[in-house]
Amino acid sequence: MEQRLTLVTLGVQDLPTARRFYVEGLGWEPTLDLDEVLFLQVAPGVLLALWPATDLRADIDPERPPFAAADAAPIALAHNVGSEAEVDEAIANAVAAGGTVVKPARPVPLFNGYQGYVADPDGFRWEIAYNPGLVVGPDGRVEFTAS
Amino acid sequence: MEQRLTLVTLGVQDLPTARRFYVEGLGWEPTLDLDEVLFLQVAPGVLLALWPATDLRADIDPERPPFAAADAAPIALAHNVGSEAEVDEAIANAVAAGGTVVKPARPVPLFNGYQGYVADPDGFRWEIAYNPGLVVGPDGRVEFTAS
Repeated sequence: MEQRLTLVTLGVQDLPTARRFYVEGLGWEPTLDLDEVLFLQVAPGVLLALWPATDLRADIDPERPPFAAADAAPIALAHNVGSEAEVDEAIANAVAAGGTVVKPARPVPLFNGYQGYVADPDGFRWEIAYNPGLVVGPDGRVEFTAS
Repeated sequence: MEQRLTLVTLGVQDLPTARRFYVEGLGWEPTLDLDEVLFLQVAPGVLLALWPATDLRADIDPERPPFAAADAAPIALAHNVGSEAEVDEAIANAVAAGGTVVKPARPVPLFNGYQGYVADPDGFRWEIAYNPGLVVGPDGRVEFTAS
């Protein structure tokens, strides 16, 4: 199993609501937009999939209990940007699209940066961060530098 | 907020156990491996972060209840490969590393492919799939072709 991610699938309560946030609200362009599932490219070779939680549950194992709420899930997605102002801008943008501020942006001394969290309509959290020590090279290689 | 993912952070119960699976078991190379957090690059510009769930919870909002178990979370990560044999191989590899088969690999007529699910030690599910209709171009652009 190679060190490689192809998809992050979020099990959503209502696909039209999720679509309204990501596509109409944020303006993200679908790679494939069907009645039953929506795929959005979020990195080279990587898609975010929005799929009704009941369908995801059935695909994995229909005999298990339903999933917990998205905001109870021990995960966060992150969207890093290049400055504190861009963090504020991205959060405002997400809120205008129908997102909810979970943690207002604030300085993070640990990484000499700035960060906040917004939730999508299901409660999935996006960390919006400026981390000057996380550097993506032109080849896509990520490095942490002292900051 | 641009159409871009930087990090997927999984809140783990025990970081050494998660490290044993991803680093020692699967052989994935850390971008940064600290006592408190581990980062693994999984796509150009994208990191998988393993962080104790209690720390992630505290970072988002310490006043909220603890997270649900990872296997109750309405998400799945996917690792796509190029053939049915590679699906079987990747699943065997994940099991040898300490993963658990959640759904044995089987044909999926819907996308003319083959798929199974394995869970990491926390219960986070990886879909291992061969989907001949999901094609990643040399520039990293993902397309769905009729299959």
